[in-house]
Amino acid sequence: MDRTARDSATPSIAVIGAGIAGLTTGKMLSDYGVDFTCFESSDRIGGNWAFGNPNGHSSAYRSLHIDSSKYKLTFQDFPIPDHFPDFPHHSQIKEYLDSYADAFDLLDNIEFGNGVDHAEHHDDGGWTLHTQSGQAREFDFLVVANGHHWDPRMPDFPGDFDGDIIHSHSYIDPHTPLDLHDKRIVVVGIGNSACDIAVELSSRTTGNRVFLSTRSASWIVPKYMAGRPVDKYGAALPYVPPKLYRWVVNNAAEALAGNPELWGLPKPEHRFLDAHGTQSVELPLRLGSGDITAKPNIDRLDGAAVHFTDGSVDEVDVIIYATGYNITFPFFDPEFISAPDNKIRLYKRIFKPGVADVAFAGFGQAVPTLFPFVECQARVIAAYAAGEYRPPAVDEMEAVITADEHKNLGHMLDRPRHTQQLNVFDYEREMRVIELPEGRVRAIEQGSPLTGRTTALAR
Amino acid sequence: MDRTARDSATPSIAVIGAGIAGLTTGKMLSDYGVDFTCFESSDRIGGNWAFGNPNGHSSAYRSLHIDSSKYKLTFQDFPIPDHFPDFPHHSQIKEYLDSYADAFDLLDNIEFGNGVDHAEHHDDGGWTLHTQSGQAREFDFLVVANGHHWDPRMPDFPGDFDGDIIHSHSYIDPHTPLDLHDKRIVVVGIGNSACDIAVELSSRTTGNRVFLSTRSASWIVPKYMAGRPVDKYGAALPYVPPKLYRWVVNNAAEALAGNPELWGLPKPEHRFLDAHGTQSVELPLRLGSGDITAKPNIDRLDGAAVHFTDGSVDEVDVIIYATGYNITFPFFDPEFISAPDNKIRLYKRIFKPGVADVAFAGFGQAVPTLFPFVECQARVIAAYAAGEYRPPAVDEMEAVITADEHKNLGHMLDRPRHTQQLNVFDYEREMRVIELPEGRVRAIEQGSPLTGRTTALAR
Repeated sequence: MDRTARDSATPSIAVIGAGIAGLTTGKMLSDYGVDFTCFESSDRIGGNWAFGNPNGHSSAYRSLHIDSSKYKLTFQDFPIPDHFPDFPHHSQIKEYLDSYADAFDLLDNIEFGNGVDHAEHHDDGGWTLHTQSGQAREFDFLVVANGHHWDPRMPDFPGDFDGDIIHSHSYIDPHTPLDLHDKRIVVVGIGNSACDIAVELSSRTTGNRVFLSTRSASWIVPKYMAGRPVDKYGAALPYVPPKLYRWVVNNAAEALAGNPELWGLPKPEHRFLDAHGTQSVELPLRLGSGDITAKPNIDRLDGAAVHFTDGSVDEVDVIIYATGYNITFPFFDPEFISAPDNKIRLYKRIFKPGVADVAFAGFGQAVPTLFPFVECQARVIAAYAAGEYRPPAVDEMEAVITADEHKNLGHMLDRPRHTQQLNVFDYEREMRVIELPEGRVRAIEQGSPLTGRTTALAR
Repeated sequence: MDRTARDSATPSIAVIGAGIAGLTTGKMLSDYGVDFTCFESSDRIGGNWAFGNPNGHSSAYRSLHIDSSKYKLTFQDFPIPDHFPDFPHHSQIKEYLDSYADAFDLLDNIEFGNGVDHAEHHDDGGWTLHTQSGQAREFDFLVVANGHHWDPRMPDFPGDFDGDIIHSHSYIDPHTPLDLHDKRIVVVGIGNSACDIAVELSSRTTGNRVFLSTRSASWIVPKYMAGRPVDKYGAALPYVPPKLYRWVVNNAAEALAGNPELWGLPKPEHRFLDAHGTQSVELPLRLGSGDITAKPNIDRLDGAAVHFTDGSVDEVDVIIYATGYNITFPFFDPEFISAPDNKIRLYKRIFKPGVADVAFAGFGQAVPTLFPFVECQARVIAAYAAGEYRPPAVDEMEAVITADEHKNLGHMLDRPRHTQQLNVFDYEREMRVIELPEGRVRAIEQGSPLTGRTTALAR
């Protein structure tokens, strides 16, 4: 049901996007008995995990499997099916989200094919949402859950290239959108997509010659260790002092994962845990089998020639930029809210200090996986909307944001890819054990900044 | 030059096959100044490594990379090129063999397109070889180097199957010899070929549904460990007491490689070193991603249905038997020399007790790789042909064969796949340090059984 009246007991709530962040937000709001309207530009839920999403916001390729094991990505509220493999295929993630939406009756609250074109913020609070269908809709509170893996970031190398250029966002398989057989191909990047695509296209059955060009160094992490999904070994994490954990893992992992220099890739200058690694079982094998040739960054382009920074030059047919994504809020005035260089200061990656009637869900590079992270954020957002949680004062939020940045990113690389990195176990425990209880006390004592009332807590 | 005269100073020598065993034998014979004639049924050298070999004796598929690193497979006499990747492609192995043959002027001694149809042994020693070209050629000494990876071993399951059946021997790629897209496929076996083919065909880009059916259990070994080719870690082997080595490796490897049961495969009942493992980086990943479904052995076939021994039944379009090879000597009378169940009693896998004028090269499942093994065998064979090595008396050879079988195979599985397993480092050291010097003394004292003379040793 759509609630737009601003004088009801709970605020009227709009959620932008019906991907994992929007869906979990909707489910948690329902748990608190809070109504909401979700605006989804596509005809289906799932966002990034809806392969071939007609709204163009899925980056999934045909062979994509999630890089975290099902044991980590399962929602606490809705266990992932036992029969799923350790590392589910994108079609299974979509199936999981479909049954999640079904189990919690989320579909009735979603307006499909009615994304938000512009979110107009009122000086006295509240929003007018101008939607695809041409409506202007009023809401008290806006949850931004439009995802951060849909707006391709393209590098800008000097010179002109005669061949085809695509971003990994539009890569589907060796036949789509380009016929990638018997081609010379440069894949640019060192993230999961870059490695998956380079591996897929370097199969000797395709006849391609593949170069992997990277500016950055990354540790290459297997998906299995001693027969078990690698992320299962992170379970002990919250109970180990962070410095000790970092010391042990950095030293063990560097020894176990191997120095990428052995396969021709740049040697990471950062420690193992200082940036989230690339998960690829096959990349070392393909480099070590001569099927993929490692290259440094591109220096310039000239016709069919790609000049690399080591002075080498190769004639190439296709360049695939697997260079990541911009965090983009196309519905906000950029001077009001934007994320230049993928940086946006948010309290616990949710609240924007000084703007009480907006919250963000899913804008973190959660390690090992986004699923429990958005589920946790959704719980906080729902508590906030229900008047059962209140964040601290603006100046304290600003101070904590700075402290958290130092904690999460101080040892990280300062690259757009890494601006949002955080550990999901730490995050979840902090929110559950500290932040929600303290925010509940604040809400009781000071009322909700959304509604100004404390009544909900008397239930 | 072809030498068929039986009265010359050294015996006239025929070599059957110009694969790695025949080529290294030729090279070593040349080193001793001994002439030879090599009979090769194909128009090219390389045997198994000549992809698409017109004689049908190559089992290489398009994407095949050797499973041992270049550091192990390099010939001692002819270093593998530095620029080769860690795990060369089959085309690079062929290139290596071509340059080997070229460097040692081996081509002039090879009769291409003139394989041996029948090798007739004379009661008083010596051979008449009936060749493809219809000739009958006389030789004193015959070296059998026709390989053991070309005669497909096919299982015989009850029932009839309506779909296509091929052996991995004829598998080239997803287009050849069958169009393997959008098919339901059972790959039978758990060796390297079975795993490579199952992995290749299970790529989501092919649209196939792949089952891997195996009767046997096997440890699955990665190609890299801590960034270095796994077989590099075997270098210390000859200097460690075998029992200690076995204890350490069995325990460490079982922990490191993971229990295949975790991915749905049968749990090996043998220890890690009790049978050579399967090298596959990708199989655990594909099983754990649901792209390949593990199945037990086939119970029976019925139309399109494959019944497995666990009672499950799947409709299938194609069965690929990656079930190994027979050791076959089509040119011998089977009652004279054959290898039923792949078993043949050979002294040091070279000499057949009681038949002084034949030697075998390359009939061992050498771990980690065949290359240094055949090189070592070729050196012994050449020394024998030159009169500089003499094996022990027949009864001692028989005793040693039994003892070696116990040493090499006593802890191994009794399966055709494992009948010839041996450790190449142990073998090479034993031949170099013990067998060749002792055999030289025997040759000096007793003369050569091939020529009856000791003069060659006076040089």
